[in-house]
Amino acid sequence: MIKVTIIGSGNVAQHLITAFTESQKSRMDLELVQVYSRKRETLAHLLSLDRITNDYNNLVEADLYIIAVSDDAIKEVSSNLNFKNRLVVHTSGSFPLELLDNNNRKGVFYPLQTFTKNTKVDFKNIPICLESENAFDYHIIEKVAKTISNKVFAINSNQRKALHVAAVFVNNFTNHLYQIGSEICQENQVPFAILKPLIQETANKIMELTPEEAQTGPAKRNDLKTIQAQEEFITDDNNLTIYKILTQSIQYNG
Amino acid sequence: MIKVTIIGSGNVAQHLITAFTESQKSRMDLELVQVYSRKRETLAHLLSLDRITNDYNNLVEADLYIIAVSDDAIKEVSSNLNFKNRLVVHTSGSFPLELLDNNNRKGVFYPLQTFTKNTKVDFKNIPICLESENAFDYHIIEKVAKTISNKVFAINSNQRKALHVAAVFVNNFTNHLYQIGSEICQENQVPFAILKPLIQETANKIMELTPEEAQTGPAKRNDLKTIQAQEEFITDDNNLTIYKILTQSIQYNG
Repeated sequence: MIKVTIIGSGNVAQHLITAFTESQKSRMDLELVQVYSRKRETLAHLLSLDRITNDYNNLVEADLYIIAVSDDAIKEVSSNLNFKNRLVVHTSGSFPLELLDNNNRKGVFYPLQTFTKNTKVDFKNIPICLESENAFDYHIIEKVAKTISNKVFAINSNQRKALHVAAVFVNNFTNHLYQIGSEICQENQVPFAILKPLIQETANKIMELTPEEAQTGPAKRNDLKTIQAQEEFITDDNNLTIYKILTQSIQYNG
Repeated sequence: MIKVTIIGSGNVAQHLITAFTESQKSRMDLELVQVYSRKRETLAHLLSLDRITNDYNNLVEADLYIIAVSDDAIKEVSSNLNFKNRLVVHTSGSFPLELLDNNNRKGVFYPLQTFTKNTKVDFKNIPICLESENAFDYHIIEKVAKTISNKVFAINSNQRKALHVAAVFVNNFTNHLYQIGSEICQENQVPFAILKPLIQETANKIMELTPEEAQTGPAKRNDLKTIQAQEEFITDDNNLTIYKILTQSIQYNG
């Protein structure tokens, strides 16, 4: 039986609590023994209050402590833990395991997904990227990760950094392109909803094709007439700059 | 009974042929009477050769002629039709209906989707944007569009131009961001597949949330430490320029 404690009450923490609670219904080898939250009420909808503490001194013994707090708080939280030589991991994509306090054994448990409050996700399909200082600890976090996800990867700190940068491009920046598309629709009294099937299909295509194979559009075809007409159509300077730079990037590298 | 003829043999033409052929199996009010293709064999896998012509003089009478050819060829193809006063539409997102020859009644039948050869799409969910010179013709193309799609919109030429520009942002440019993400993964020996669930979820979120609500990431949080670390991590100058411009755009407008 592996005992797991989660420290944190934000998006990632809540999604992990839900995933572990679901998972332990159908298995006997894992238990979410406790959760730490500064405000206990924040998590009252997810588990009973007797399993939520707001005092580091009340943390019970566990095989794995998952610190799921904002990047800025990881260092401080890990130094607040007043025990030694236990296995403590963070869930951040951007920081190495060295960020954690030296008092305990270190690791990383990074679920690569965009979490929104109140939006249910199927954890089974979320890649979890794992790292630890030694093989024994890796074995523990791997076992835990596999109880909630089918996609578990050993990823070192440099690879995780790369993944996080790549994730900014395919997730944060892509969503920003959706926003620009939405603005252009609004300015011209067209419902943004018309674009939603296209957005879905763009993401679906990449499941089967490489991005190179899937690339279409005026820049790819080097259709200069359409590119010029579209540049003239865009009124916002910032959007025009983005249009030109991405068009050039496709023309030269795409 | 509405008789439809398709002129063209490319991606859009083939997807339309498939959609109409499927549709007329279960209804009696529409018939795909003929298709024009320079090479008849190109379409032999989709319909019987006696319904494919490669000679404009052999085009039979129909209620609607759909010109589904590349943008550059629309003008010439429409002037090759040696009949008058029939309803002729093109399928382009970027050109007004005036591009069509004056000999016939004009319209636009623009399915807003990214079509890839041999990739099956469900036409029922593809928005079709319609325009015509008069209400009677609109009635015909609307009836035809509704036999293959549940999402039919009246869209004028300026709105269609806006949609097409917005589509370049949410489809072509988004796919290019996938490519940059894929390059960063390759350079750092991480499988791009790890990012695929994130790509799916990014597109899924936008079905429920506005892009503003869905925006996350270091630029949105104004997390300058992470932004600086990521800028230092990116080795390719072009990708760095794109990272900086999209980050700024989110910081100031996102």
